Amino acid sequence: MKAAIVTIGDEILIGQIVDTNSSFIAKSFDKIGIGVFEMLSISDDKQHILKTLSSLQNTFDVVIITGGLGPTKDDITKKTLCEYLGDELVYDEAVLAHVTQLIEGFFKRPITQINKDQALVPSKAQVLFNKVGTAPGMWMEKENTVFISLPGVPYEMKYLVENEVIPRLIAKFNRPYILHKTIRTYGIGESLLAEQIESWEDNLPDFVKLAYLPSPGQVRLRLSARGNDEKQLQIELDKQVEKLHQIIGEAIVGFDDGETLEVVLGKLLKEKGLTLSTAESCTGGKIAATITSVSGSSNYFKGSVVSYASETKVNILGVAQELIDRHSVVSVEVAEAMALGVQKLMQTDYALATTGNAGPNKGDADAEVGTVVIALATPNGVYTEEFNFGQPREKVIDRAVTKALEKIYKEILKN
Amino acid sequence: MKAAIVTIGDEILIGQIVDTNSSFIAKSFDKIGIGVFEMLSISDDKQHILKTLSSLQNTFDVVIITGGLGPTKDDITKKTLCEYLGDELVYDEAVLAHVTQLIEGFFKRPITQINKDQALVPSKAQVLFNKVGTAPGMWMEKENTVFISLPGVPYEMKYLVENEVIPRLIAKFNRPYILHKTIRTYGIGESLLAEQIESWEDNLPDFVKLAYLPSPGQVRLRLSARGNDEKQLQIELDKQVEKLHQIIGEAIVGFDDGETLEVVLGKLLKEKGLTLSTAESCTGGKIAATITSVSGSSNYFKGSVVSYASETKVNILGVAQELIDRHSVVSVEVAEAMALGVQKLMQTDYALATTGNAGPNKGDADAEVGTVVIALATPNGVYTEEFNFGQPREKVIDRAVTKALEKIYKEILKN
Repeated sequence: MKAAIVTIGDEILIGQIVDTNSSFIAKSFDKIGIGVFEMLSISDDKQHILKTLSSLQNTFDVVIITGGLGPTKDDITKKTLCEYLGDELVYDEAVLAHVTQLIEGFFKRPITQINKDQALVPSKAQVLFNKVGTAPGMWMEKENTVFISLPGVPYEMKYLVENEVIPRLIAKFNRPYILHKTIRTYGIGESLLAEQIESWEDNLPDFVKLAYLPSPGQVRLRLSARGNDEKQLQIELDKQVEKLHQIIGEAIVGFDDGETLEVVLGKLLKEKGLTLSTAESCTGGKIAATITSVSGSSNYFKGSVVSYASETKVNILGVAQELIDRHSVVSVEVAEAMALGVQKLMQTDYALATTGNAGPNKGDADAEVGTVVIALATPNGVYTEEFNFGQPREKVIDRAVTKALEKIYKEILKN
Repeated sequence: MKAAIVTIGDEILIGQIVDTNSSFIAKSFDKIGIGVFEMLSISDDKQHILKTLSSLQNTFDVVIITGGLGPTKDDITKKTLCEYLGDELVYDEAVLAHVTQLIEGFFKRPITQINKDQALVPSKAQVLFNKVGTAPGMWMEKENTVFISLPGVPYEMKYLVENEVIPRLIAKFNRPYILHKTIRTYGIGESLLAEQIESWEDNLPDFVKLAYLPSPGQVRLRLSARGNDEKQLQIELDKQVEKLHQIIGEAIVGFDDGETLEVVLGKLLKEKGLTLSTAESCTGGKIAATITSVSGSSNYFKGSVVSYASETKVNILGVAQELIDRHSVVSVEVAEAMALGVQKLMQTDYALATTGNAGPNKGDADAEVGTVVIALATPNGVYTEEFNFGQPREKVIDRAVTKALEKIYKEILKN
């Protein structure tokens, strides 16, 4: 079972948008044991599309195409697919009724020819009905390959993959099992981690592969096992994770994609009945935004004071002006006062504070570009640490957010 | 001048990470008039890499490869490239000295064989010296194609593209001009926009292409002009933008990639000497984080109160408990009181507030999932509006952030 993903659109080739659709589709295919062997991004150009389709024909069992189905004139996918299949475009009555209802009923506008033409599909295609938008998905077969065409708008594509594509693929193909386990580690760099686990890695069985996925402040280790006996694969993965735990246990924070630091921290806070608040200067609200990206965070997160101006630190958080004058706004003393201030103000068990200079310029603070002080107020006192996260601005902010969450997570775990 | 971008790594093919490198490279190439005609993601597999390289050989002038150069064992790119070129790996003395200095001098660890092997390069390759990491880039030529291999870590790849790759490409190739102009519109959907500008679009000259790039709350229009006379292209683009302005002027907020809503709003606030604060419930700090992602935002942004808990709304923002009890926490009345509360607390000219239910569950609020109320406090009164942004949670938050920034931008522009 081999699949290829094709993305159509000049906006990807000139770098204006990042292709996130392919990643979503690959993840969905991987879960049901369909391996994606190639991803391609090509232009909105008829000859390029035709050439690509014929190069993939019969080499892949499934070719899934996103993009180029919108209502506007730069979209030529549908006509080109039709030509490739030697078919003709016809109006699909169900889609036409749906589009009409959406435009006239929901948006309260008269329907236009551009809208109506969204209901055109190749006569031999099976329509994948798009309840969340106007462009239908299409399932077409030619010789040994299934071609699936989906709109490029991410939530429409996702809806169709989950509700129409995956069930049809499961029904049509027999597939091997591919199981993955991702181990999220924080605080050890990639090379050092590689050395620490070298002998474990060398002894992995042939059907288990390891990959390192580094990103700011963390390294994820991904184990992939492939075979026909699902139970045996699961047993092997569990055994390997257990061995790994004995070597680098203290660096492991969570497992798999869903267990991000903010999710794992949220579970821990909820389980222990603890509450948290933040006082953010250089992170500008991003710690709060990250914590509240988790549904149910209102159970443990009371809020944040984003104190970008010094007067906000003084008037709302109760940081003494004299402290700022003496130590400067980016200092251990001010970070400490901010954390204690918001802990008291919001009456929470724990509080995090950040102050720093994210750059790119020195600005009014004396601190070097990249400097961030993180303070953690606990029921038993306040701890601070100073870092330099380098540049650019975006990386400084992201590393400060990750490090702050890592600090509080490890602190609570100790107790 | 045709280029292809190849990304190597199983983590992309199973959907674990999104490929952002290709987008960065494409944008950099586009700026110097090198067209990217294809992007491919392939596996860490020797045969797959060899087959891909030979299929691109002589069809493209430049093939740029990222990924697969890290210190760990899942990286086989370098050996495979060497085999493809019929070359052998040798130690590069300058790279070896750099790696040794970085590991022993900066990280204070003894150097290992894994580290040393990062200095291995094909003997005929030109080394692209990587000052910000340990894996060197490589420039290799075979027949009519230049192959460039770069590490996959985004900031190392970016450093090498900007400092080593682009200058060498400019020196080596003659290129046509490709000029782009992006027009950022807010508040009109894609289909309606397409109808409003249909006759303008039909009359665009042949060498100018238009693309629609919709995303939550906005549609970007991208004009691309290609030819040998740079000045003529620029005049034509300016003329077309001027025409477009006459048709949909009120929807246009900014131009080009850098002019995001938060940047344009920041400029306007700074220019007028106005200040802003936010009180955020359902957006959880993301409006503040978006505003402060812009360097220099401390000139106009004083801060935010992220009032996730009701008690935070009452105790810090001064929202009357009675108001919450009577109208519920997601209501026009509470949003209004939050905006006025933070405007007064932080003494700013303008203030934005959000309260809503981002979902996925109904939670303790009575409000439907997806409901968001946005309030804007101005020097002349407070305005509120209620929206339903549907699902999922992430989209609700993003649309609320965009809509809030759009509201204040358009309000200030009126005055």
